[in-house]
Amino acid sequence: METVSQNKAYGGTQGVYRHASTSTGTDMTFSVYVPPHEPGVTMPVVWYLSGLTCTHANVTDKGEYRRVCAELGLIFVAPDTSPRGEGVADDPDGAYDFGLGAGFYVDATQAPFAQHYKMWSYVTDELPALVAAQFPADMTRQSIMGHSMGGHGALTIGLALADRFKAVSAFAPIVAPGQVPWGQKALGGYLGDDKAAWRKHDAVALIEDGARVEALLVDQGGADQFLEKELRPDLLRAACEKAGIALTLNMREGYDHSYYFISTFMDDHLRWHAARLA
Amino acid sequence: METVSQNKAYGGTQGVYRHASTSTGTDMTFSVYVPPHEPGVTMPVVWYLSGLTCTHANVTDKGEYRRVCAELGLIFVAPDTSPRGEGVADDPDGAYDFGLGAGFYVDATQAPFAQHYKMWSYVTDELPALVAAQFPADMTRQSIMGHSMGGHGALTIGLALADRFKAVSAFAPIVAPGQVPWGQKALGGYLGDDKAAWRKHDAVALIEDGARVEALLVDQGGADQFLEKELRPDLLRAACEKAGIALTLNMREGYDHSYYFISTFMDDHLRWHAARLA
Repeated sequence: METVSQNKAYGGTQGVYRHASTSTGTDMTFSVYVPPHEPGVTMPVVWYLSGLTCTHANVTDKGEYRRVCAELGLIFVAPDTSPRGEGVADDPDGAYDFGLGAGFYVDATQAPFAQHYKMWSYVTDELPALVAAQFPADMTRQSIMGHSMGGHGALTIGLALADRFKAVSAFAPIVAPGQVPWGQKALGGYLGDDKAAWRKHDAVALIEDGARVEALLVDQGGADQFLEKELRPDLLRAACEKAGIALTLNMREGYDHSYYFISTFMDDHLRWHAARLA
Repeated sequence: METVSQNKAYGGTQGVYRHASTSTGTDMTFSVYVPPHEPGVTMPVVWYLSGLTCTHANVTDKGEYRRVCAELGLIFVAPDTSPRGEGVADDPDGAYDFGLGAGFYVDATQAPFAQHYKMWSYVTDELPALVAAQFPADMTRQSIMGHSMGGHGALTIGLALADRFKAVSAFAPIVAPGQVPWGQKALGGYLGDDKAAWRKHDAVALIEDGARVEALLVDQGGADQFLEKELRPDLLRAACEKAGIALTLNMREGYDHSYYFISTFMDDHLRWHAARLA
């Protein structure tokens, strides 16, 4: 693991790191904030998965998480959203919603994407092992959150690995990719036409098929341009009600899909996570 | 004035605006955060001047000021750091420390810069009039802060217009441009060889020449790569001691020159300003 940069912030260290990933067969860059701490202690880990077009840098620059992570003693990890580099297949038309910056947190099975797009393995297996080895992380206390496509990632990974994550939350998540254009394009492109394979990467379908967590927290901007076509929090609400999952769905009037929205409610989410990581 | 973007954040509105400036003869872009407020009220205005290479966007993205401005009811204005556009002269070698992104908050008198580089007039005269006309601003309650070159701007403008600004603070400011390489290059390039003209744009010289404010707040990172060669807070400390100005100079061990440093201490500065704007 190579250190790209380290900067002191709120008494801790905001780092950016790069490593050669065996999952994706590419170099991968990620950021980790380690709050101020006494030598020798380990701290809980909050995973943050980013949305379409993002790298680790968007939330690192604009997420406003460091103050609260420093106060609460949380390590904050932000992976990239796809493999990148020479030879990595992209959307044939260069669209923003598939390929580079749009890995959708699945292990692709379809050519030419299957070669590098192994974001599920990367985020759930390879990167946690690296974080455990390199940072003062208490891997028995992990939680996961994300935004938009990364909210989809947080919900699906949190539901699939419910024993690992003590808290799962999302900002404006894609809750049912199998039912919306972004998700249908991505799951079709990465996983092919077999819709049974899609259900493992669809939060609403996972809940319908029996996946359970005790509680979920979702914040959704009421002025989000993607709300009705791509995000559909109503579908998550219905699934959670039927399954008995305690969903807190906060509709935030006037807020859009941007980091101005995320940063406003980051504090609430981190405190909700910290209470469950204690 | 044209609205480039508006996003709801922390209950208020983060806007970016563009207008044709008569001072610079160019279009100028700036950002304004207006906190949540009752209709009809006006609120104090905090001016934030940015450093070398920056536009309004750096602090808008990374400054982490909105939470506290929302809490305290402060309008936060971030101008650009130079004129820009076709026909605007730049450093002949394209260096980062002069010309575009490096206006140093002076009205240039030297060709070819005198044509557009009128940042003193822009920041002290034209933009305040626009802000007063377009936003719910109480112009009897203004304060000013800045970073690096913008810290220089905040100190010199705050000292020159002490009746206007109720509070003046800076992050890692250039306190004595006449004595350091960045400043000597810029003041020489914009104002020519007459060093008497430089003294009106040098915080330490202004204090030596009799300018007074009651108090100043400066935060300075101890690991700032520019500390000894360009910033020299010791010179400001000596001038303030001699002049009887209550300088609070916080040396912050391990912090560098970046927005990771600024965002960490933004909260402190805004509260210090708010107490003086009450």
